[in-house]
Amino acid sequence: MKEIKIALLGFGTVGQGVYELLQKNKRHLGEKLGLEFNIKKILVRDKAKKRESQAPDELLTTDFKEILEDKEISIICELMGGVEPAKTYILSALDKGKLVVTANKAVLAEAGAEIFELAEKKRIFLGFEASVGGGIPVIKTLREALIGNQIERVTGIINGTTNYILTRMLEQNLSFEKALEEAQNKGYAEADPSLDLRGIDSAHKISILASLAFGFYIPYNKVYVEGLDEVDLMDLQFSRDFGYIVKLIAEARKIKNQIEIRVHPALLPENHILTSVRFNYNAILIRGDFVGDILLYGLGAGKEPTASAVVGDIVSSAEYLFAKNHPLIPYPKREEKESFIRPIEEGVFKYYFRFSAVDRPGVLSKIAGVLGKYGISIASVVQIGRQKRKGAVPIVMLTHETKEEKVISALKEIDTLDIVKGKTKRLRILD
Amino acid sequence: MKEIKIALLGFGTVGQGVYELLQKNKRHLGEKLGLEFNIKKILVRDKAKKRESQAPDELLTTDFKEILEDKEISIICELMGGVEPAKTYILSALDKGKLVVTANKAVLAEAGAEIFELAEKKRIFLGFEASVGGGIPVIKTLREALIGNQIERVTGIINGTTNYILTRMLEQNLSFEKALEEAQNKGYAEADPSLDLRGIDSAHKISILASLAFGFYIPYNKVYVEGLDEVDLMDLQFSRDFGYIVKLIAEARKIKNQIEIRVHPALLPENHILTSVRFNYNAILIRGDFVGDILLYGLGAGKEPTASAVVGDIVSSAEYLFAKNHPLIPYPKREEKESFIRPIEEGVFKYYFRFSAVDRPGVLSKIAGVLGKYGISIASVVQIGRQKRKGAVPIVMLTHETKEEKVISALKEIDTLDIVKGKTKRLRILD
Repeated sequence: MKEIKIALLGFGTVGQGVYELLQKNKRHLGEKLGLEFNIKKILVRDKAKKRESQAPDELLTTDFKEILEDKEISIICELMGGVEPAKTYILSALDKGKLVVTANKAVLAEAGAEIFELAEKKRIFLGFEASVGGGIPVIKTLREALIGNQIERVTGIINGTTNYILTRMLEQNLSFEKALEEAQNKGYAEADPSLDLRGIDSAHKISILASLAFGFYIPYNKVYVEGLDEVDLMDLQFSRDFGYIVKLIAEARKIKNQIEIRVHPALLPENHILTSVRFNYNAILIRGDFVGDILLYGLGAGKEPTASAVVGDIVSSAEYLFAKNHPLIPYPKREEKESFIRPIEEGVFKYYFRFSAVDRPGVLSKIAGVLGKYGISIASVVQIGRQKRKGAVPIVMLTHETKEEKVISALKEIDTLDIVKGKTKRLRILD
Repeated sequence: MKEIKIALLGFGTVGQGVYELLQKNKRHLGEKLGLEFNIKKILVRDKAKKRESQAPDELLTTDFKEILEDKEISIICELMGGVEPAKTYILSALDKGKLVVTANKAVLAEAGAEIFELAEKKRIFLGFEASVGGGIPVIKTLREALIGNQIERVTGIINGTTNYILTRMLEQNLSFEKALEEAQNKGYAEADPSLDLRGIDSAHKISILASLAFGFYIPYNKVYVEGLDEVDLMDLQFSRDFGYIVKLIAEARKIKNQIEIRVHPALLPENHILTSVRFNYNAILIRGDFVGDILLYGLGAGKEPTASAVVGDIVSSAEYLFAKNHPLIPYPKREEKESFIRPIEEGVFKYYFRFSAVDRPGVLSKIAGVLGKYGISIASVVQIGRQKRKGAVPIVMLTHETKEEKVISALKEIDTLDIVKGKTKRLRILD
């Protein structure tokens, strides 16, 4: 049986998952492929650290050079996360002619231009299935299966933490804080969940998906991002009364020659397929000109699903390794034009507004007057009678389609009215 | 730009879809891959036939040999359907060293052993993404992305016609006949829909999926098949009252060293992800030991989605062609053991029964008595008061888990009781 020697960079959750998979399914892979995948080295910061999965001592090293210079190692799996030193390691490995598999969304979303360019230049396979959606084969689908299509849109729920929180809030009437606490207790949210809650994790991922969908690299800093700050339990409930479910959506779509790319909470009609994505599950809906809409759904994170994706890429690597071949399908190219991203102000959406207004006659007409001035047309409105919240009552409104810049101006004006108490909540509606 | 010459066998819906895709997206593919895919020949039965898409006359031929002997043609796409002459053409093409792409589930489900064996022996790429689930990348996912996993189960709604009918029946209270007529008018059901309604189309497809999932070839004739015959609108409604949705399910799962593989209508709990698959959409739920559950969803048939899958495979072919390389991952092998399929009688399920009984005291106790004799334990029961159906009333019952052979014996006995009018309806419940 042929042997392939691998190195892992990092031995945290994902690294241990890969180690366990290659051990548990060694015979399965051997019988299927006639290949033996052996981990020869694992880069760690601290050899003595206690881990759930213990690898033999002689595998562990703290010296990346030892791995890089080892001619027997042909595939390097970067499973550390973060931009540096991951970026330097990936570039060095590619430069040295090693095949690279990475599970690192941040490094691709922030330094993908250089990494993709070097992989292309050196004609080396670079696998990154595990960087988005855990074990969901979304990278392979966008890169390979849908290659015949012009992709029109990618819409995803690609952060399990926030989806878990939104699901539990709505279904159990939990406050945001309570739901977050629960997510942390279940291990679905990290001790510092801010990358998830602020939408940054989703933005990293949609940057990668959009780069594949549209063929050129769209770095993370081009993504318009809103997190869950705008969402109260009350907004989830009002939305449901109107027939909508609120999800944290990452979306990229082509509009003429521009790409609109954004992450924000959005109202989806309750029969939308993405509303059936609950708890910590992820899903990505892709629209191509021939395939129509396809959806990929599964656990978007976690030790085992991520290991599944990494090993899928290791096997792809092996194929290129033996054939001394390079993928026919190119990696996303660097875009020269600066104007290819559509500013959020030019976006056209329907909106959900929740005004906090004093409970007094004429309030609605004042608000509606400002909206009318900006050409924003109201589709439906609910004014709730006085509640316990000292003097302020919620007025909830859905609009017809309107340009974001008008909404920004109108709300700015409305929020200065003396009848309005507190900042108006504003969510986009996607159909 | 490098040119790749292709032949199409068949110029029906799928053939025309592929032709249109390669025309519409020629520039897109050229820019992306630096390749030009040109259709050089199209095998048709009748050159003069009027078609929606007209190809230039000089492309059409009625002689397969002309294609087979053409050294410029490197990829042959079999898009005719049916077992023969498709099988002969595929085998001849592989034998000649041509790369083959097929959209034909029947030929793979019935003659896959020979076809896969020859592709393996000649070390030639054979693409068959379009054979199951239209544009849904389920073949690539099972073969490549999930290669690291031991697959435990594949569960699908893989026939759009029957799913459309079941959706409309339940949601609009339509009779089976009415829903079928509607499906035919919409083009979702063929003039002769019997392959779909009898579950044979689903059986072809689950045969292919199971072969990939479990690594050895499981021909269609090993699949236990029931169609929609057992399903009345009344059963869909009663099921919903119990919190279940009825779908035509194709499932293959590994139980110890055996494979259980079957197609039949089944009750799914209403929060099961597959119940959100409505109308003519398809979805496949795959469970692997590391990836957990993943779901792939989309249009499972139709001109454009199927063309998307065929062209995906054409591009994969091109990669192998240039590398003069063979896929590392093998095609399903012929299984030597005869005993690897678990007989349906040994299956263990929960059941839904609907008895048609006379409306008289003591009836329920008699039926329950027979069930008890066979060790079948009742989970819940609903007896509906007299209706218009002269004398017979429905008694609906859900059972706990029990072995299928017991159910067969018990129902045989119950259906001979003089208090029972007509054959008992029996559906399996999947959780």
